[in-house]
Amino acid sequence: MQDITKTLARRVVESRYEDMPAPVLHEASRALLNWCACAIGGSRHETVERALAAVTPFAGPAQAGVLGRRERMDILNAALVNGISSHVLDFDDTQAEAIHPSSPVFPALLALAEWRGFSGAELAHAFVLGVEVECRVGRSVFPQHYDAGWHITGTAGIFGAAAAAGKLLGLDARQMAWALGMAATQSAGLREMFGSMCKCLHPGRAAQNGLHAALLAREGFTSSEQGLEAKRGFGHVLSSRFDPSAIADGWGARYELSSNMYKPFACGLVAHGVIDGCIQLRDEHALRAGLIEQIDLKVAPLVLELMGKTAPRTGLEGKFSVFHAAAVALVHGAGGEAQFSDAAVLETEVAALRGRVRAAIDDSLLWTQAHVAIRLRDGRTLERHVAHPLGSLERPMSDADLEQKFHALTGGVLAAPERERLARLCWALTALPDAGVIARAAVS
Amino acid sequence: MQDITKTLARRVVESRYEDMPAPVLHEASRALLNWCACAIGGSRHETVERALAAVTPFAGPAQAGVLGRRERMDILNAALVNGISSHVLDFDDTQAEAIHPSSPVFPALLALAEWRGFSGAELAHAFVLGVEVECRVGRSVFPQHYDAGWHITGTAGIFGAAAAAGKLLGLDARQMAWALGMAATQSAGLREMFGSMCKCLHPGRAAQNGLHAALLAREGFTSSEQGLEAKRGFGHVLSSRFDPSAIADGWGARYELSSNMYKPFACGLVAHGVIDGCIQLRDEHALRAGLIEQIDLKVAPLVLELMGKTAPRTGLEGKFSVFHAAAVALVHGAGGEAQFSDAAVLETEVAALRGRVRAAIDDSLLWTQAHVAIRLRDGRTLERHVAHPLGSLERPMSDADLEQKFHALTGGVLAAPERERLARLCWALTALPDAGVIARAAVS
Repeated sequence: MQDITKTLARRVVESRYEDMPAPVLHEASRALLNWCACAIGGSRHETVERALAAVTPFAGPAQAGVLGRRERMDILNAALVNGISSHVLDFDDTQAEAIHPSSPVFPALLALAEWRGFSGAELAHAFVLGVEVECRVGRSVFPQHYDAGWHITGTAGIFGAAAAAGKLLGLDARQMAWALGMAATQSAGLREMFGSMCKCLHPGRAAQNGLHAALLAREGFTSSEQGLEAKRGFGHVLSSRFDPSAIADGWGARYELSSNMYKPFACGLVAHGVIDGCIQLRDEHALRAGLIEQIDLKVAPLVLELMGKTAPRTGLEGKFSVFHAAAVALVHGAGGEAQFSDAAVLETEVAALRGRVRAAIDDSLLWTQAHVAIRLRDGRTLERHVAHPLGSLERPMSDADLEQKFHALTGGVLAAPERERLARLCWALTALPDAGVIARAAVS
Repeated sequence: MQDITKTLARRVVESRYEDMPAPVLHEASRALLNWCACAIGGSRHETVERALAAVTPFAGPAQAGVLGRRERMDILNAALVNGISSHVLDFDDTQAEAIHPSSPVFPALLALAEWRGFSGAELAHAFVLGVEVECRVGRSVFPQHYDAGWHITGTAGIFGAAAAAGKLLGLDARQMAWALGMAATQSAGLREMFGSMCKCLHPGRAAQNGLHAALLAREGFTSSEQGLEAKRGFGHVLSSRFDPSAIADGWGARYELSSNMYKPFACGLVAHGVIDGCIQLRDEHALRAGLIEQIDLKVAPLVLELMGKTAPRTGLEGKFSVFHAAAVALVHGAGGEAQFSDAAVLETEVAALRGRVRAAIDDSLLWTQAHVAIRLRDGRTLERHVAHPLGSLERPMSDADLEQKFHALTGGVLAAPERERLARLCWALTALPDAGVIARAAVS
C-alpha cells in the first residue's frame, strides 16, 4: 500500500456527488441536526465564553457566525469556536474508533459555506468525504494510537477537516495531498486533557488547522506528499501500528457515516450502557434512591479508565465519573445535560447514592456494554445486562429522537420558530442552494 | 520529579529580571539580531508569499507587522507568518538538541510587544525564559523523540512560545501551568516535512499556538496541570524516554541561551563541518572545480539522514543535500543564501562537481563534525578534519560576524540607514522603553 496519501487525495478529489447513496446523504442531515444541537446547546458554556474572550480581540472580518450567539468573525476563528462549542457538552456523535466525526468537520464546512455560498449538496458531499477520511485514518492506527494517549478526535479529525474543506475549495489531487500532509504534521491532542476545558480545544483546533491546511494548499503551500505513510509521517510516528489498508480498502463500497452513532446521554459513550441499564431498572421497578442499598456495576476496563472519578465536584468532572452517571440516572431517570450540571453533582441525594456505587472490571464486556446489579434494602437484587445501549448501531436514535434531542438542547438559546426552521433546513440540506443559510439560522 | 509542569510554571512566573546575568541578556540581543536577519531576509520568499495569500483574507486588526514587509495584522497571524519567514532560509539559531530556539519564541513576543508596548527588558527576560523552557523540554525527550520523527523546533518550541508569552502577559502560576498544558496538547511537527514549505509552518504554528495558549490561559481556559509528566502527557506520549530532571535541574544556575549557536551557512547545521572544511581547503590551496577529481566526505549518520539528497533540483532541495553543500562551497567559496538558490543548484559547474562528491558514514564523528578529502587531478589528496565548524560553541560567530550576516541578509529588503537603526535597537534591547519599536523598525 504505497502512496496512500496520494491515493486518498485522488479519491477525495475524484469523488462525485452523484455516486453518494441516498441513505448516506440522509445521515449527513442527521449528523448536522445533532451537531447543531450540540454546538448551539454548548454555546453559552463558560468554556466557550473564555475561548471567545481570548479570540475576539484578534479575529478577522465578519465572515461566519458563532452558532447560538451573535458574534461574527473570520472563518478560521469561527471554525475554532464552533469546534469547541460542539464538543463542550460531550454530546456529539461518535464512531466505533472513538472519533467524534462531526465536530472537527462541520465547523470548517459551515464557515466556508457561509463565506462563499456553497450549496447544501456540495456541503453534504464534502462532509461525507471528511468523515470517510478521518475515520479511515483513525482506524489505520487504532487502537494503539488511542491507547498510547492520543485524543483521536483531534489527531484524526484534522484530516477530515482538511479533506472536507479541500473538497469544497476544489483542490486538485496534488494540493489535496499537501493538505493531508499539513494535517499530518499538525495532528495533535492528548487524552491527559480529558476533564479540562482543553479537551474541546482539540476538535476546535482540528477544524481550524484542517481548514487552514486546505487554504494553504490552495495557494500552493507545499508539504510532503507521503504525510501518512512515510517513515517519519503520521502513521509511524504517532502510532506503534499503522495499517494503510484500513484507509484504502472498500472505498466507495461502504461509508463510514453509515455507522455513525448519536448520544442520548450527555457524557462519554462508555457510560451509556450503565445509564441505560439504570434507567430501565428504575422505570420498571419504580425505584427511588431510598430503596437502594448498593449498586454494583460490571464494565469493560476502558470505562473505568475514562470515567473513574469517584468524587466529582463539578458537572464537568461528573462526565468522567461512571459512579455519578449511575447515581444520577437512578435519581433523575435521565442522563441529559441537567444531570451533568454542577447542581446535579452537588445534590445531596445524588451524592449519597454515588457513594453506594461500586464498579468492577469485567474483561468479557465490550466497552459499550454494562451489567447493572442493584441491591435493595428489602433484600432483593435487580439485574440488567445491557448488550446494546440506546444510541448504538443496534438500537439507533430515530430521526424523531434526534429532533427531540435537538429541541431539548437548543431550547434555552433559540425560540421555538427559529428551532423549527433550523431543523427543517438540516433535513433539507441537499436541496439548499446556499448552505450558508444554516449557519445564519443557527445564531441567536 | 513529580509535578514538573507546576514546578516549571512557578519558576517562570517567579523569575525576576534582576537575576538575569548580563552575558545572558547580551545573548538575547545577539539572538534577536540574528532572528531579525533571518525573518527579514526570508520575508520575500515564495513560502511566505503563499502563507500570506492564505492568511490575509482572514486576518484581524492591524496590531503587528510582518517583518520585512508592509502588511499588518492581528498578533496571532503575525506570529504565524513571522515564524514561517524566520525559518524559511534555514539560517536561524540552533541549540545542541537540534532546536531552533528563536523562531518559535520571538514572533510571539515581538507581536505582543508591538500590540501592548512591553519594555525591551521585559521582552529580553521573557525570551530568556522561553528559550529555557523549550530547550529543557526538548532535552527531556531527546534524542528518542527527535529520532522517532518529531521536528523538535515545533514540538518543543510551542512550550517556549507559551511560557514566554505567558510571562509577558503576567500569568499566575496556575495559568502558566494551563498554558504549558495547552502547549503539550498542541505539540506537533513531523520531520517528514523537511524539504517542503511545510517545515517552516512548524515554528510558525508553534509561535501562534503557543501565544494563543497563553492568551487562553489568561482568560481562565483550563487544561491539565500535568501536561508534561502525566501518563498520557507530552513526555510519555511523544517519546519513548522522558526525563523530567532535564527540565528541573540547574534552573537559574546555567542558561540555555548561553549555549545558543548561530549559523554562518544557510543550511542545516549538520552540513556546516563539510562546508567549512571545503572552504578552508579551497582558500588555502586556491582550488578551482576543474582541478578536482573527486571529493570524499566522512560524516556522522545523521548528516546523510537529513541531507542525503544526491540530485537536488531546487534551492530548497539543495539545503537537504550535503553533496550540493560541498560542491557549491568549493565553487563559490561560500555557503550563504546565494549558494542555496535555484540558480546555484542549476549551475553547470556546481552540478558537475556535485556528481563527483561521495559521502560515507563514520560512526566516530559527531553530527557537527566532518572529514573532507579532495583528490586532485594532479594526484594529490588534500584533507581537512573539522572538529568544530565556524558557528559552533567552540568557534562562535562574533558580534561583528553576526552584524555582517544581518546586513547581508537584509540588504535586499531594507535600506542601509534602516538596517543600521534596527541593528542598534537590537543591541540596545534591554534599554528600550517600548520593544515594539523593533517590530516597527523591521518592516519595509
